Amino acid sequence: MEVNFMTDNHKMWADLGMDVATHDILCEVLPGAFSDVFLSQENRPKGMDYFNMVVGDIHGIRPAELIEAQKNGQKVVGSFCIHVPDEVVIAAGAIPTGLCSGSQFWVPGGEKVLPTATCPLIKASLGARFDRTCPFFRIADLFVGETTCDGKKKAWEILAEDAPMYIMDIPQLKRERDFKHWEEEIRGYMERLEELTGNKITEESLHKAIEIVNNKRRALQRLNNFRKQKNVPISGVDVLLIHQIAFFDDPERFTTMVNKLCDELDERVKNGVSVYEEGSKRILLTGTPLSIPNWKLHHIIETLGASIVGEEMCTGLRYCENLVDEEATDMDTMVENLARRYLGHINCACFTPNMERIDDIKRLVKEYNADGVIDVNLKFCNLYDVEGLKVEKSLREDNIPVIGIETDYTDEDAEQLKTRIGAFIEILG
Amino acid sequence: MEVNFMTDNHKMWADLGMDVATHDILCEVLPGAFSDVFLSQENRPKGMDYFNMVVGDIHGIRPAELIEAQKNGQKVVGSFCIHVPDEVVIAAGAIPTGLCSGSQFWVPGGEKVLPTATCPLIKASLGARFDRTCPFFRIADLFVGETTCDGKKKAWEILAEDAPMYIMDIPQLKRERDFKHWEEEIRGYMERLEELTGNKITEESLHKAIEIVNNKRRALQRLNNFRKQKNVPISGVDVLLIHQIAFFDDPERFTTMVNKLCDELDERVKNGVSVYEEGSKRILLTGTPLSIPNWKLHHIIETLGASIVGEEMCTGLRYCENLVDEEATDMDTMVENLARRYLGHINCACFTPNMERIDDIKRLVKEYNADGVIDVNLKFCNLYDVEGLKVEKSLREDNIPVIGIETDYTDEDAEQLKTRIGAFIEILG
Repeated sequence: MEVNFMTDNHKMWADLGMDVATHDILCEVLPGAFSDVFLSQENRPKGMDYFNMVVGDIHGIRPAELIEAQKNGQKVVGSFCIHVPDEVVIAAGAIPTGLCSGSQFWVPGGEKVLPTATCPLIKASLGARFDRTCPFFRIADLFVGETTCDGKKKAWEILAEDAPMYIMDIPQLKRERDFKHWEEEIRGYMERLEELTGNKITEESLHKAIEIVNNKRRALQRLNNFRKQKNVPISGVDVLLIHQIAFFDDPERFTTMVNKLCDELDERVKNGVSVYEEGSKRILLTGTPLSIPNWKLHHIIETLGASIVGEEMCTGLRYCENLVDEEATDMDTMVENLARRYLGHINCACFTPNMERIDDIKRLVKEYNADGVIDVNLKFCNLYDVEGLKVEKSLREDNIPVIGIETDYTDEDAEQLKTRIGAFIEILG
Repeated sequence: MEVNFMTDNHKMWADLGMDVATHDILCEVLPGAFSDVFLSQENRPKGMDYFNMVVGDIHGIRPAELIEAQKNGQKVVGSFCIHVPDEVVIAAGAIPTGLCSGSQFWVPGGEKVLPTATCPLIKASLGARFDRTCPFFRIADLFVGETTCDGKKKAWEILAEDAPMYIMDIPQLKRERDFKHWEEEIRGYMERLEELTGNKITEESLHKAIEIVNNKRRALQRLNNFRKQKNVPISGVDVLLIHQIAFFDDPERFTTMVNKLCDELDERVKNGVSVYEEGSKRILLTGTPLSIPNWKLHHIIETLGASIVGEEMCTGLRYCENLVDEEATDMDTMVENLARRYLGHINCACFTPNMERIDDIKRLVKEYNADGVIDVNLKFCNLYDVEGLKVEKSLREDNIPVIGIETDYTDEDAEQLKTRIGAFIEILG
């Protein structure tokens, strides 16, 4: 099939005040990269066509929809972190969206305003905004930052000089008082969104939003469950792509399309179809997020013949594993449940201590029958870097093979990674 | 005069379980470094003799006192940050102490357990503990970490594998609810110290402790005020040394000795005595802490002929500028006042936003009649690095000359710093 990348969008981008000429450079390289990584795969599920289309025109189709919604009075809210509850945005009648942060293309722009020794994800985010080369960064009416890490916390101060920011204060521990604090933060966010949209968040609208986002999580859980099979019917890089698109697409349409794909995968399971060769080693990834179009590690690992069966990451199982309780319909309990889910069940390295993440990794190794773990760190992420030492030590104590990898958005280390990861795969079971 | 460095302490160090042979390497180089930086100065106040003695045997005299106090049942509490209130330790009948963190000597030990891309202060701290080359890190009965930055927050998890840790959760903003949170943290710390010491913190003991620490601050304020004079009677590096010793010495004795020195400085002011040549340029430093024995920048700047008239730093005015209210004598109000002082009046780059720090710098430039500001960043401190961009931009808007410097604990950049700082001093009014 052919994937159309970002055509006929120049007028929209110009109207958004984008630097269209610079952005065109990205548009020129992305189709080749996508083709190399995705379209070269054999035996892909037919249901990936939808996601190919979405990513093929990711700066066109969805931005056009958001602009249309804005014309009809809706607001768009951009956020950077899975601790920020989408339910609140949806309940206020606004549209949540992810923001560009996953390519080296945006990094030099970020380095103009941030120290080089900042993780590429943060640098790319600020570069995408300041260089005006991301439509989502032009469209959003409000940007919601959080205090998860030093790099982001201070980057928002720089971003606030150019963009309307709202900051949520993530606790650093998870004691009872921290849950109360996070509840207050969610209430503050609700007020801010009511102010932005002019809409009141009601018990009905919040409960409906909880259902919408839970359904999206259920679809992603269903998708990930296929990776527990002996014959895995979908590649790791395809599941990663779907997780990345989850941040941008309309949640209800996305849910439908993921479930449609899963129906196809059900058939594959019945027929024992796998996208991997028999006996390929099963890898669980853990660590820092891989945002679109960062497909580097998946591509390297899977072209080396291993299969990635899970991501203990924000762009992976941390995003979808836990639902918000749906029983409650009164405001206080729903807000408390949001706080429980969004603080209690996401084990980011920003928390101290964060032993639950190690428990998660070990549990996932069993559930997904992984042969080994690759602990990935984006360069200059001190939180995951330090925690990686504990993660790797603890896994080794349990005789789970593990390797720590530090990388960034460039391709300079690709050969070195191939060598190291290749050697790691060879020693597995 | 002669300064005796760390003699006859080998038995004590061995009893503390220190790596005496490795520690001896430090003992060999420190006297030369001290002599170069301090004893080479002309016209030093006589009152510096006491501080020479303290630093001359810093791993001997004070550790011996602490061990003696422990024999008498007292506990020693080590901390890393000026947000942690000493008053609470003193009120519980325990002794607060600083910990080794200021030399490249300890950095390689830290790099064994932490990423290289961590600031030298944190690496030195962990190296000093794990390599067993700091007596204070052997003596303390409890170590109090805090969640000020990513590097420290995660380093405490590593340290906790080897040392008894207690963590205080510093808010990241300064809203009313954050002050309440910090009050709760102080109450938790009080309980922990009561448990450690077996002593009850009473209204009397806490009020007495507030007076003791305030008196120390008053003495340091008095000392710093001499630097506002046209004829500055004491060098910047000597004041830095006194600030560094403040973390280790007995607070009441320290206060007495600082005041004694100040009496001598009063005389100097009357007689128009300055340690600097007339017309030397007046520099205010701002940025990351300079802990003992980090005298590098002061030595470079002052041997270039400029005078350092103030440090907007944790090892400087941030430590002493604001008192805890002394009026209140009831527990609730005293705890609230501690929270106000320790959260409200320390403008660390860990807060977001942190515009008050820029206000502080501009105020201090006026009060100390500074000709220029040097913004110092310890390498890999992302917080101060990002904030530095805002600081420098804002000072330039006010036509205050400013230069940003990034450095570490090595001497490798000494020549480059001399060139850059020399050029900066030359352009000053």
